[in-house]
Amino acid sequence: MKRIHDFEALPSRYRANLINSIPGFKPVSLVGTINENGAENLAIFNSFFHIGANPPLLGMVFRPEGEVERHTLENIRKTGCYTINHLNKDIVVNGHHAGAKFPACISEFKACGLTPWYSATLLAPYVKESTIKIGMHLHSEIPIAANNTILVIGTVTEIWLPENVLSEDGFVNLAQAGTLAGSNLDAYYEAIRLVRLSYPKPDSVPSQI
Amino acid sequence: MKRIHDFEALPSRYRANLINSIPGFKPVSLVGTINENGAENLAIFNSFFHIGANPPLLGMVFRPEGEVERHTLENIRKTGCYTINHLNKDIVVNGHHAGAKFPACISEFKACGLTPWYSATLLAPYVKESTIKIGMHLHSEIPIAANNTILVIGTVTEIWLPENVLSEDGFVNLAQAGTLAGSNLDAYYEAIRLVRLSYPKPDSVPSQI
Repeated sequence: MKRIHDFEALPSRYRANLINSIPGFKPVSLVGTINENGAENLAIFNSFFHIGANPPLLGMVFRPEGEVERHTLENIRKTGCYTINHLNKDIVVNGHHAGAKFPACISEFKACGLTPWYSATLLAPYVKESTIKIGMHLHSEIPIAANNTILVIGTVTEIWLPENVLSEDGFVNLAQAGTLAGSNLDAYYEAIRLVRLSYPKPDSVPSQI
Repeated sequence: MKRIHDFEALPSRYRANLINSIPGFKPVSLVGTINENGAENLAIFNSFFHIGANPPLLGMVFRPEGEVERHTLENIRKTGCYTINHLNKDIVVNGHHAGAKFPACISEFKACGLTPWYSATLLAPYVKESTIKIGMHLHSEIPIAANNTILVIGTVTEIWLPENVLSEDGFVNLAQAGTLAGSNLDAYYEAIRLVRLSYPKPDSVPSQI
């Protein structure tokens, strides 16, 4: 076993790769937004996390104010909505490409070969090629003083998914949907379902369900 | 494509499964802590997310104050430290079992057949059977008013991992480490590396690296 501890002494790129890959697999997805002039924007994120199921809330983290151009966050603030679109094998290169620093006048949809798709009830564009699509309304923002990042909290307003990946009990079979997992900012993984286990109780070992 | 939107009308368990599985794959890990009397605690979490690489900061979310007994958060507050230990195939049932509501006097390590292991520099126990182990110091807490959950931010202080999963550029090969991905609160997935892609640039399609 190797121990790594003096993070400050590490070369910056090495440290970024290490810290971005060490927490485990990430829910990497494409975020679709639109600005007040109707210009569409698409960007790749991997910092989504569950905040609550009732109301249905998801969080995601944005980099510090002023450090980069943040069309996604600006659009979310102006329109109050965004979409989260799962990556799959067929669009992994297109989706990764959407992480490039395109100027505001360029639509990442067009530049990366992805198709905007709209539902009747949400202003922000979905990615047509994504198997699972989530419509979000901005709930609130929380500044993270530790490093000037911003936590954006959104309410899930609608979900689009193929009938066959949805179980009777509400569970979504991500492997069957072809959803990819991410690690670091550049690695993508296919998932194979290992096991689904019964609700854990102190007095019995969980069993397969 | 099926559209789901009236979340309030869904049965509570169905909604919980749906919202917990829809965001994609999660970094599921075991969190080890110790209280002021030396009693060890282990619990399973899947809400870890990257906040920054320099300083190396990870976030995780805790359920509302008073809703459940939260030995993990109490121990983190008292000792200022915790460990994050990746799940692998050999300990997935043990790890899932650690999610049961054991009374404070019971060590989940013992009850679930996992072995506490200590480094020379951290008070909190690691899981010996975990391939990748992360030592954390509490940085700060942020209340999330949206649903009274608590965001705990920690600083990575040390990482323990096998030499052969660490690339020359700091990238950690999670598939080679046998790290599992999670979805919902009960499903576990093995990962197969699909591709690692070059840094995205506007004027060229990303290529495999």
